[in-house]
This record gives sequence, structure tokens and C-alpha cells, in this order.
Amino acid sequence: MNSLLVLVIGAAVVISLALAAANFFKVKQASPGTESMQQIASAIKDGANAFMSLQYRAIALIAIIILAIMTTVVSWQAGIAFIFGGCMSAIAGWIGMHTATLANVRVSNMARESKSLGKTLQLALMGGSVMGLAVAGFALLGLAAVYIVFGYWLGQLSPGELVLHDNWLGIPGIRDIPFTMTVSGYALGCSLIDMFNRVGGGIYTKAADMGADLVGKTEIGIPEDDPRNPATIADNVGDNVGDVAGLGSDLLESFVGALVSAVILAAYLFFTHNGRVDQEISHSTLLKLVNYPLVVAAAGLLSCSLGIVFMRFKRISDHPHKEMNLMTWASAILTLGVSGIASIYVFRNVTDAEFKILGFVINGFSPWGCAVLGVASGIYIGHLAERYTSYDYPATKRVSELSREGPALTITQGMAAGMKSVLAPVFVLAVAIIGSHALAGLYGVAMAAIGMLSFVAVTVSVDTYGPIADNAGGLSEMAKLDHKVREITDSLDAVGNTPAAIGKGFAIGSAALAALSLFASYVYAQAGEAAKLPDFNLVLNMINTLTLAGAAVGAALPYLFSGILIEAVAAAARKMVQEVRRQFADNPDIITGKSLPNYRECIEISSAGALHEMKLPALIAVLAPIVCGLLFGPEFVGGLLIGTTLSSVVLALFTANAGGAWDNGKKYIENGHFGGRGSEAHKAAVVGDTVGDPLKDTVGPSLDILIKIMAVISLIMVSIFGKYNLYGWLMGQ
Amino acid sequence: MNSLLVLVIGAAVVISLALAAANFFKVKQASPGTESMQQIASAIKDGANAFMSLQYRAIALIAIIILAIMTTVVSWQAGIAFIFGGCMSAIAGWIGMHTATLANVRVSNMARESKSLGKTLQLALMGGSVMGLAVAGFALLGLAAVYIVFGYWLGQLSPGELVLHDNWLGIPGIRDIPFTMTVSGYALGCSLIDMFNRVGGGIYTKAADMGADLVGKTEIGIPEDDPRNPATIADNVGDNVGDVAGLGSDLLESFVGALVSAVILAAYLFFTHNGRVDQEISHSTLLKLVNYPLVVAAAGLLSCSLGIVFMRFKRISDHPHKEMNLMTWASAILTLGVSGIASIYVFRNVTDAEFKILGFVINGFSPWGCAVLGVASGIYIGHLAERYTSYDYPATKRVSELSREGPALTITQGMAAGMKSVLAPVFVLAVAIIGSHALAGLYGVAMAAIGMLSFVAVTVSVDTYGPIADNAGGLSEMAKLDHKVREITDSLDAVGNTPAAIGKGFAIGSAALAALSLFASYVYAQAGEAAKLPDFNLVLNMINTLTLAGAAVGAALPYLFSGILIEAVAAAARKMVQEVRRQFADNPDIITGKSLPNYRECIEISSAGALHEMKLPALIAVLAPIVCGLLFGPEFVGGLLIGTTLSSVVLALFTANAGGAWDNGKKYIENGHFGGRGSEAHKAAVVGDTVGDPLKDTVGPSLDILIKIMAVISLIMVSIFGKYNLYGWLMGQ
Repeated sequence: MNSLLVLVIGAAVVISLALAAANFFKVKQASPGTESMQQIASAIKDGANAFMSLQYRAIALIAIIILAIMTTVVSWQAGIAFIFGGCMSAIAGWIGMHTATLANVRVSNMARESKSLGKTLQLALMGGSVMGLAVAGFALLGLAAVYIVFGYWLGQLSPGELVLHDNWLGIPGIRDIPFTMTVSGYALGCSLIDMFNRVGGGIYTKAADMGADLVGKTEIGIPEDDPRNPATIADNVGDNVGDVAGLGSDLLESFVGALVSAVILAAYLFFTHNGRVDQEISHSTLLKLVNYPLVVAAAGLLSCSLGIVFMRFKRISDHPHKEMNLMTWASAILTLGVSGIASIYVFRNVTDAEFKILGFVINGFSPWGCAVLGVASGIYIGHLAERYTSYDYPATKRVSELSREGPALTITQGMAAGMKSVLAPVFVLAVAIIGSHALAGLYGVAMAAIGMLSFVAVTVSVDTYGPIADNAGGLSEMAKLDHKVREITDSLDAVGNTPAAIGKGFAIGSAALAALSLFASYVYAQAGEAAKLPDFNLVLNMINTLTLAGAAVGAALPYLFSGILIEAVAAAARKMVQEVRRQFADNPDIITGKSLPNYRECIEISSAGALHEMKLPALIAVLAPIVCGLLFGPEFVGGLLIGTTLSSVVLALFTANAGGAWDNGKKYIENGHFGGRGSEAHKAAVVGDTVGDPLKDTVGPSLDILIKIMAVISLIMVSIFGKYNLYGWLMGQ
Repeated sequence: MNSLLVLVIGAAVVISLALAAANFFKVKQASPGTESMQQIASAIKDGANAFMSLQYRAIALIAIIILAIMTTVVSWQAGIAFIFGGCMSAIAGWIGMHTATLANVRVSNMARESKSLGKTLQLALMGGSVMGLAVAGFALLGLAAVYIVFGYWLGQLSPGELVLHDNWLGIPGIRDIPFTMTVSGYALGCSLIDMFNRVGGGIYTKAADMGADLVGKTEIGIPEDDPRNPATIADNVGDNVGDVAGLGSDLLESFVGALVSAVILAAYLFFTHNGRVDQEISHSTLLKLVNYPLVVAAAGLLSCSLGIVFMRFKRISDHPHKEMNLMTWASAILTLGVSGIASIYVFRNVTDAEFKILGFVINGFSPWGCAVLGVASGIYIGHLAERYTSYDYPATKRVSELSREGPALTITQGMAAGMKSVLAPVFVLAVAIIGSHALAGLYGVAMAAIGMLSFVAVTVSVDTYGPIADNAGGLSEMAKLDHKVREITDSLDAVGNTPAAIGKGFAIGSAALAALSLFASYVYAQAGEAAKLPDFNLVLNMINTLTLAGAAVGAALPYLFSGILIEAVAAAARKMVQEVRRQFADNPDIITGKSLPNYRECIEISSAGALHEMKLPALIAVLAPIVCGLLFGPEFVGGLLIGTTLSSVVLALFTANAGGAWDNGKKYIENGHFGGRGSEAHKAAVVGDTVGDPLKDTVGPSLDILIKIMAVISLIMVSIFGKYNLYGWLMGQ
């Protein structure tokens, strides 16, 4: 690796992690407020820590099994990279969550003491930035380490190694390119942690939330975060383990997934073209293709660090919306500027003939152009989500309006709004795919995904700030602080919605784009040496009945996965409902405020429910491609991946936007429209919100992980399916 | 055409239509009961007739526009076949609906006078059989006429005509096989009528139903079909225009779609293989492939006629379930037996070399084997639907159980059950695709679809009998007849659920299978003369970014379509709710029974709502492939079709089964579980049922039409997209 590049990437990692540490201590030094606030905060922190350690212990067991399998059937390098990826993701998630549980009470106290929106905003943002910087920093640190150790030191990126190798088990026909397996292992480690964090955290938080709402708000009629509600601490723990840790590892996984998909594709492009004398790409050009994604990531990380430092020392105004936008836009533009300059440097020695083979129509600027296209389409997708879910637009207002007719029409209208919201973002994505492919071939599509996530450090900072502000509001309610405090935290929380919508747009958009690169790599891997023949076409044929049948099964899988997730939430929520009802019934003093409810019991129910229910969905994601591959072979699995991706993208958009419309439809009523709080319309809107919660916060975000876990596992296993599958055996192939 | 075959097909058509007429008169001769019953019945009949004639008038206008376009850009033969198809579908739908509106009151009266379940069952079944026989009879009559007139008399099936012809406009590059265009026109005519009947009828019936339930059941607390409810007549009209006419034209469309997809595929197989000296198929073998689907259809129609005649003269027991199953199974087995024998006759002179080229592994029995596979998988899919939606199984019981926790968990659990129900039937379909392809190539897949629908006459008879019994029950309630009458009609109605579930399985399964044949034909048509080259591969490549982008947009389209449909129902239902509330508020005598409500106003609201709202969804189905084709070209549209098909199949299964689970979950509570009628659980279950109604009765059934309308239009237009599209022009192709 070019030493300048190592320096830049190293600097980005060091600076970002140092800044994360500095911001962490700045948050920690702030005053945690009154004793009662500290008590509540420490209950939340303990609950979150307890769940995370239980969860990580459960994952560790599964990770060891996968490690053993990976080391046996793939390579020890892939196994180590897998563990390494898992650790990076776990550390980033834990740091972010830990910071959030410290920050919430301090933000609440800052609002109480300073009464200044600007100062409170700054502290919340510093808390969120620890997660943002940790996510991008650890992801890049780990990947750079994989490059340096396995790629450069151990030579997996040297010219002689970028060919198909026999598997170390020596079974004839089982062959792979070692470096693609190693980075796939790294990506799989990140995905696995993410799957559990998302699913486990998602079940935890929604079970607690639904449990708290169904009895507290709907049956008893006490407000949200009322300390008399036994589920209220569990609900706040859920925000930290679900929204903070879940979201952090989700974007880390997306970021790594996008980077790795580009790298694997580059390796295959080199492998195939280098077998063909008419179309040779030099090894140094390959290394540029392999390194450029990391350079863009480093450029993004440095730019985001600058943006965050700026926010740390800037005098913050009382307009959180403006400050947020300033930081996001400044970091995004800086990222694109720096990576544009970097692209000139990186691709300076590539020949015109090579550009032509790669399909780079504007030479060295092509991949950068794709990144710009990715950013633009990601932002537009986020804007579209806003149009369908914000109550400033007619779709959500209509949901509120129909709430006056009762829960049935609320649900019906929200569902219709969610369904109608799917086409426009998908169309934007389709244009991005066609456009980036026209600019720089399949590599360009991968770069568009990387572009979307290049300033992930800021996106995650802003996304994490939302739940911190939300938690701070909850704390102020539970500690019975002045209403002014709640007002400040509420206005902070409201600002988080737009960036959060854009973040979701990036997550699902980048997953779809990364999946395309992974399909292509899958087809290359399936073809093996045949991919070097001059008449080789990169084809996944839908008229092939095996592939079509696979696509049909693939399209159904996300529904099964979602159904199981929703049922898991409902099952855990129901136990919570019964516990909350029991507490109110057994001890009438709770409702009068004379006696405290048993918070711990509710925390344990959520925790046990989440740990118990998270295994099945995760297993489906891991085992579905393996089982299908061993039964029906690689063509079926190719279809399976396409079907799952298509179906997941539309289902994720539907669930996210329907859930968003119900959520904000309720908020619109709470702002005093159509009868306001306590009206029949409000009751119906609460039903809508409760239905939407698991859809938008558990199902939607889990679907983009499903896509990538399945694609990476298929890629790792394809040479095995190709050789051993029941259908082929029956047909005598 | 072989004169024996003409005789068989002619006999099938004549016998079935004569039997339909005989059964119609038998129903008409039965006594229509008391004057008050007749008054109500004639209000329902007038409402249904009024809506149908308004609807057909609206369709006629659109049909004339399409006729003009078809005649201009395709051929006058396709235009005439289009009108012909539309007429067959419209006539069958109208006859069925008209019979149903006569039968309902007579069934009610039979129950009142005879108090015999068996006799009532027989009359209801005779009423339903008119629709069943009309659907299959007119579909086959029309298609046979198209064959004889255009195929044989005008020579479109003669050897010289089964090649690509220049379009009569003479634009170079716009070429098609005339007979495939003619049968596509016929199929499109059926699909168009079906689209409007399904969508218009679906909106009508659900708006009335939801309107009646939301105020009557939920707010006022009066039972279903209470004459005090102003929407009650509209609700019963809706059953006839939605469930009877809609369902009839739906299965007619499926039947024709399956037949036509096989015929078109056969024409392309002949066209391509006959350009390749190594792989020639004789013209007489082609005609066998083209004729065999009609022979199977005729065999099915004769067998079903026998089954229905048997039921007409048999002494019917008091076990409707047994009688129903007897008729269905007898007809199905007879159909398979007769078509098995026919396959020996039809394929007797085909050479082994030809069988090999076609991929018929068990020679002449191969297509028949596929039909058997289709029947078996269709029945199994129906059984799976039963497992997920009947309250005899745990999934639906769980929905009932969670209704105790209020509407939010009812909705959540029903949604989860629906989502989980998708994979198993899709897996069965995948196995059917792989299996039938292994038996007889792509032609085999088309034959599997035809197998599923071969005994459609009985399926539709049984399906139509359900709403007739339902309507009879409503009438007995409105005419305040003895409770015994309602009990009889209710037990008839309950029996209809299983065959209805199986019918839905056939409809969506056959749509998916027929779509695959249409994709293949589309790719052949897109390739044009190139399809004759020896190295031609039938490929629709998902790694092609245009195709993948098209697939993504295609996957989103069914959501848009469904969202618009649901919103249309909600909008129409809301107007109904307001009208019903207004009537109760303005005239307090209605609720005491002293004064009659204004039924006519409610009928007009449903009618106007349905006519107004049905246009947009129909336009989307017709225009989406045309607009996409002109913008992005044929590869994009190929992806669009795949995406739409995959997404529609899973969405249709989800909506049908979630809706079914809510419906039966409510019924389970009404049977006295979890508190029974009037309990909080029942209220929550009614919310679930109301949400599910438009999903299962409007959205689900419309999606399988969407698949075929889009596929047929794309097939007709592909040579035009191939030559004229914006993307190609921009890229300088």
C-alpha cells in the first residue's frame, strides 16, 4: 500500500478515535444533576449494560461456532477477519451506548441548569458524536488492518494470489480467491453483531415501548414516561440498546458492507480480465481500485471530524435545525471535495486503455462521480421519506384526519400511505443504478453506495443525538423536573427526525447498491475459471427456472423474517402488558404515586424476551442461503439473493414509511389537531403508532442487514454449492 | 384443426352453456318468497344491475380507445380479438351476477319453506353453477372462435404465418408473429374487463361493508344485515358486484391467461426451432402444442358439467361439506383422467427427436404430468391458506387470543401471521416450477397453470355459491325471517371458505406460472430473428443494470397499486360512514325501527365512489410497462415484469392470508371464545376484520390481474420499445 495512503487512512482513524475520546470525557465531566436524576439514570445505565453483556455473551457462542465452520471450510484468515469484524462492531456499539447512557442525564441537567437550547444541543451532539466517530473509526481501523495484515504483509493482494486457489481442505472443485474470502469474513463479523444488536435491541425496545403504551397511555391514561408506569425504565433502556447501539452497528455494517462489496468486485474484475490478453488490467491499477474505497472513507472521516470539532467549539445558536444542517452539509461537501482531489491522486497513472476496459467514461473521476450520484440520490430518498412521513405534508395529515373515524381507518390509511411511498425512492435508486453504471460500470454502482455512507460519522452522530434527547426528556419527566426542561429536550428531539429519515434512506439505498456488486461477484465466483473465457457473460438468468424459483422463495423470505420479528415483539410486549397490569392491580398505591412500581421486573421481561426471540430470525438469515444452496444449487441461490433484495427493499420502505406516518400522525394530533390529546382521534392514532412501532424500528432496519448477510454467506459458500447440491445429484450433473 | 378436436371442444362449449341455461331456469322457477323478501331482493338486484351497466359503460369508452390503439399499432385481428375477449368476460360476469341476484332470495325462501339444508344447498349450488359454467364456457367459446376464425380460416396458424411479420404500418424493425398478437389481444380483452370488475366491484363492496360495519356494528352496536342500517342494501349489492361478478371475471381471466400463455410460448418455440436446422419441429407437432391446452380445457369443462349434472339430480344430504368435496374431487379426477387419455391421442404422432427438442421427458404424457403437478400444487397451496386463516389452526386462534389486548395487538398479530404465511405456498410454487420444467420444459410450466384451472367451472360454482348463501342470510335478516333460516344459510356460507381459499391459491399460483411463460415469450419477441441463431440463449439477465433497475421499480409497483386501491376503499368507505351517521342523527326513528333508512343514497355513494376510483389503478396497470418501455427500453421492461410478478405474488399471499386471519379470528370470537360478541376482544377483532377486508377482497385478487395485464401489454409492445426508447437514444444505440 502506498505509504501516503497509509498515512492518510491512519491519520483519519487516529484523529477520529481521539476526538471520540475527547468528546466522551467532555460529556462525562458535565454535571449529572440531582440525586433523583442520578438514581434514575443509573437504573437505565445498569439495565442497558446488563442487557448488552447478556446479549454479547449469547452472540459469542454463535460466533465461535461460525468461526469454527469458517476456519474449516474457508480459511483461518477468513476466520480471524470474521472475529475481528465482530469485535469492531461490538466495541463501537458498546461505546456509543455507554456514552448515550451517560449523556442522557447530563443533557437533561444541562437543560435544567442553563435553560439554553444551544448549550443543551451542544452537549447532546457531543454525546452522539462519540458513537458516530466510533462507528466510522473502528470500521475503518478494522478494515485497514485486514488490508495491511492479510492483503499486504501476508500477500493476499499480491498478483499471484488474486487467482482462484484450491481450498486448504484440498477438495477438487472447491476454489476461491483468498482475499475476497478474508474481507467477506470481516464483513460477516460486522453483519452478525449488527443482526443481533438490531433484532435483539429492536425487540427489547419495542416490547417495552408497546407494553408501556398499551397499559399506561391507552388503558390507564397516564402520560408517556410517567414514573408511575412500571415499564417506563425498561422503555428508556430500550432506547439505548435499540435505537443507539442497534443503529450504530447497523450503519457500521452498512459502511463496511459497501466498502467490502467494492473491494470484492475489484478483485474479481482483475481476476477475470487478467485471464484475457485483450483486456488486461495492471496489478497497480487493481490496487488503486481496491484502495480507493478506503481513501474515500478516510476523506469522509477526516471531514466529519472537522465538522464535529467545529461544533464542539462553535457558539451554538438556539436553532437546532440550522446547526444540524450546517454540520451535515459542511461535512458532506467537504467529504466530496476531499475525495474528488484524492481521486485525481489515486488514479493518476491509470492508462486510457484500462479506463476503457473498466468502463470509466470520465476516466479517474468516474468513481468519484458515482459517489456524488450516491450522495445526491441518498439525500433525495431521505427527502422523499420526509414527504411521506412528516405531518407537514398531506399523506400523514390524512392519517391524522382519518383517526377521527376510529382505529380501523387509521390503520388502513397509514398502510395505504406506506404502500404508496415505495415507488418514488425505488425509482431514484433505479436511476442511481443506471447512472452510476453508465459512469463507471459495476464498480461505479459499488462506489455510489460508498458515497452514500462516506460521511457516516456525522449521520450517526445526528441519529444518536435523537434518542439521547428523547431519553433526556424521559428522565426529566421521571425526575419531575420543570416543564421547561421537557420543552427543551422535545424541541431537540423533533429536529432529529429529518436526519434520521435521511439516514434510513442511506442505509436501505446503500444496501441495495452493495447487493448488486455482491450479486455480480457471486456470479463471477460461481463461474470460476470459466469467467476468464473471452465469451464469458456476467449473467444471472431469470428465465432459468431454478433461478426464478429461487427468486420467488427469496421474495417470500423477508416476509417470513418480518413476520417472525413482529410476532417476537408482540409476544414480548404481551408479557410486558400482563406484568404492568398485574402491578397496577396488585398495588393500587402505584397509581396514586404513594408507592414505586417494580421497574426491575419489567426490565427483566424485556431482556429475557429479546434474548429468547432474537435467535430464530438471525438463524434464518444465516441458514437460508446455505440450505437452499445445498438443496438446489448455485443458480437457485442466485435467484434467492435477487428475490430477497427486491422484496426487502420495498418491504423496508413500506414498513419504515407506514410506521413513520402513524407515528407523526399521532404527534400531529398531540399538537392539538382533530381534538388533540385524549380525544377519540388520539386513541385511534395511538393504536396506529403502536402497530407501526415494530414495523419501523424492528422490521425495517433489520431487512437491509438480511440482504447483506445472505449475499456474503452465499458468496463464501458458492463453490461448495456448485459442487454439492441435491438437485444436481438427482439430475446426474 | 383436427375435426375430432373441433367436435370435442364444440360439444364442451354447447353442453356447458346449455346446462348453465337449464340451471338458470331451474333457479328462476323457484319461489321468491314473501312480498317483503321480494322487495328487498329487487332493491339488491336493481342496485347491482344499475352499477354493472354504469361500469360497463365506463369500460366501453376505455375499450374503444384501446381498440383504436391496438388496431393502429398492432393489427385489426388483434383489435377484434380484444373486443371479443372483453365481450366474453363481460357476458359471463353479467350472467353470473344476474343469476346470483335471483338466487339469493330463492335460496332464502327455500330455507324458510323446506327447512332442509340439503335442498337449500342444492338450489344455491345451481345458482353458483350458472356462473361457473358461463365462465368456462364463454372463455373456451371465445378462444376456440379466435383459433378457428383467425388461426385456421384466416391462416394465422399456417406454417408460413408463424414467422415474424412486418407490422402493417411498415416501420422497419417493428415485427411480430401475427397469431401471438391476436391471442394476446383476446387475453387483454378479458384482463381489462376483469381489472375493472375486480377493482370497481372490490371498491364498491368494501366501501359498503366497511361503512356498514364501522357505524352499525362498532358505533351503534346493531348486528350485521340489520334493516335499520342504511348501508345494508348497498352491502348486499356489493357482494354481488364484487364477490360474484368480480370473482367470475377474475377466474375467467386466469383461465384465458393460462391458456394463452401456453399457446404463445408454443408459437415461439416453433418459430425459433424452425430457423435451426438441427432442431426442427414439424408444423403438425406445433399445432398439437397449440391445441392441447384447449383440449384440456374442454376435457375439464365436460367433466365439470357431468359433476354439476350429477349434483342437480342427486339427493343432497345435509352435509354440505361432503357434497361440495364430492363434486370438486369427482370433477378434478375426471378432468385429469379425460385429459390424460386425450394426451395419448393428441401427441400420438410426435417423433422422439421432437420430444427431445421440446424437453418432454416422458414423451406425450409430459404436458399432462405437468397439469397433474399443477393441480396437486394448487390444492396444496389452498390447503396452506386454510392452515393460516382457518380458526381450526393456531395462527388464527392466536389473532383471536391477542384481540383481548386491544386492536393494536390484533392488527400486529394478524400482520405477522400473514407475513409468515407467504413462504410455504411460494415454496410449493417453486417446486412446481422446477418440477414441471424438468418434465416438459417451459411449455410444461404453462401446462401446470392450465392444470390448476382445468376444472374452473366447478371452482367458480363453489366460489359463487358462498356469496349467494351470504346474501340469502342477509335477506333473511332484513326480512326478519325465522332464526332457523339464518342458521341454515350460515352453515352453507361457512362451507364456502375452504373451496374459496383453494380458488385463491389457483388464481395466484396460475398467474405466477403463466407469467413465466409470458416472460419467456417476451424475451423471444425481444430477440426477434436473433432467437433463431444456434447460439441464442433465452436470457433475462439480472446483472444487467437496466434489467435490475426495472426489477426494482417493478417490485415497487404492486405496492403503489395496492396503496391506491386501499386508499380508494378508505375514501369511499368514509363517505359511506358519514352518510350513515348523518341518517342516524337526522332521523332518530331509524334506530327504533319506526322509519326506514334511505338505502338508495348509500347505494349511490358506493356506486359513484367505485366508478370514480377504479380508473387510476387500471390505468397504472396498462400504462406502466408502456411508459417504462418508451423511457428505458425492453431490458428494463423485462426486469419490470419479473419484479412486479415476484412482488405481487408475495403481496397477494400476505394480504389474502392476513385478511383471512382477521376475518376468521373475529368469527372465532363470535362463536363464543374470549368473551364472544360484544366483548372488548370482539371490538378489537372487528377492527382487525375491517382493516383486512380491503386487503383480502380488493388488493389480493387484483394483484394477479396486474401481473398478467402488464405481461401481455409488454409482449404486444416489445418490438416498439426495442426500436424507440429514450435511454437507447441518449446512449446513441
